[in-house]
Amino acid sequence: MKIDIITVVPELLESPFSHSIMKRAQDKGLLQVKTHNLRQWAINQHGQVDDYQYGGGAGMVMLCEPLANAIETLQKDTVYDEIIYVTPDGPQFNQQMANQLSMKENIIIICGHYKGIDQRIRDHFVTREISIGDYVLSGGELAAAVIVDAVGRLLPGVLNDETSALFDSFQDNLLAPPVYTRPASFRGWEVPTPLLSGNPKIVDEWRYEASLRLTELKRPDLMKE
Amino acid sequence: MKIDIITVVPELLESPFSHSIMKRAQDKGLLQVKTHNLRQWAINQHGQVDDYQYGGGAGMVMLCEPLANAIETLQKDTVYDEIIYVTPDGPQFNQQMANQLSMKENIIIICGHYKGIDQRIRDHFVTREISIGDYVLSGGELAAAVIVDAVGRLLPGVLNDETSALFDSFQDNLLAPPVYTRPASFRGWEVPTPLLSGNPKIVDEWRYEASLRLTELKRPDLMKE
Repeated sequence: MKIDIITVVPELLESPFSHSIMKRAQDKGLLQVKTHNLRQWAINQHGQVDDYQYGGGAGMVMLCEPLANAIETLQKDTVYDEIIYVTPDGPQFNQQMANQLSMKENIIIICGHYKGIDQRIRDHFVTREISIGDYVLSGGELAAAVIVDAVGRLLPGVLNDETSALFDSFQDNLLAPPVYTRPASFRGWEVPTPLLSGNPKIVDEWRYEASLRLTELKRPDLMKE
Repeated sequence: MKIDIITVVPELLESPFSHSIMKRAQDKGLLQVKTHNLRQWAINQHGQVDDYQYGGGAGMVMLCEPLANAIETLQKDTVYDEIIYVTPDGPQFNQQMANQLSMKENIIIICGHYKGIDQRIRDHFVTREISIGDYVLSGGELAAAVIVDAVGRLLPGVLNDETSALFDSFQDNLLAPPVYTRPASFRGWEVPTPLLSGNPKIVDEWRYEASLRLTELKRPDLMKE
């Protein structure tokens, strides 16, 4: 899978992709993440990629031309399954969407900055808008990083133990059960005895019950889906 | 505001906090973000901070002792308003929560990795659990970065133009209106004429109507809140 990220601050994304699981995914050749500095396609030698918004008001808007040129340059070499714009007013990202995206071959992610990108790019180039949640960030870069991470870890071979992702929260519309590790007693706080039973059937039952209970308590909405 | 982040991969968080708006916030002394490598509090010289989970199954669980010691070490110097654990099964982060957190003085954010942290730390130390969305990441680091960014940009003085944040999506339970910048015509695609009117009343009306229409279309749930 190849993910091209268009951004005005590529340096912000350096460390998230060069450590831990995302590094492993790239080292293994399972995932290729490339950031492209939008200023390569700036409209003048000052590196201009944004301008004041029509109608007035605070905040700059990213210009059509650099974005259109960036996208079209990338499209010369690659056919993209999706051109994604990360924006707080898009449909909310969730695990099902991560699963779907993990089956794509080539994706562009456009990171907005300042007040966002000119609406005409959204109307005429973007194929999918995604919000990572109901909050506003200073730019789309962290949202892009979140999507790449959530999707990248689902690629076969990326996680050390592939069964691990199947038991994550949301994969079956249930929250994951609580987890415990050694010691069995820490400062007088004990691990639930079923987990110490050594009996897989008792453990599985306890976990399933705990997942149900937690989901009913914290996220009853998930069970209605 | 001071945010202490406890993590096993502090290097993953280097670039998000050293560029753009988060850098400016720190340079201005408005925000202090410090990452703490949990391995300082490892239980042995091998740097061990996790172990197999009780009851069996894939994925490691972060041990009680290093986390308890990390938190208690930090608490020697600082009284914390919140000890946050970022986890997909927590209440969902949103703009209201970002607003609330931006008024706190001192916060700890604990990043889980692998399968998560021992439940006893959640029960006895954590004061608030937060999920940035219904998806699973390879660790809590990006979730912590998202929270720091969303909260940090709300601190007075961080954004260049303070009015900017007030018109963001979600601040009034409405999505932001579309934005446009020069040129008025790009490849035959035109900017809506009200925005070119030069009349602030016409612009404001158009924007409000557009916000309402977009919110009704894409996120009717926001209007019911």
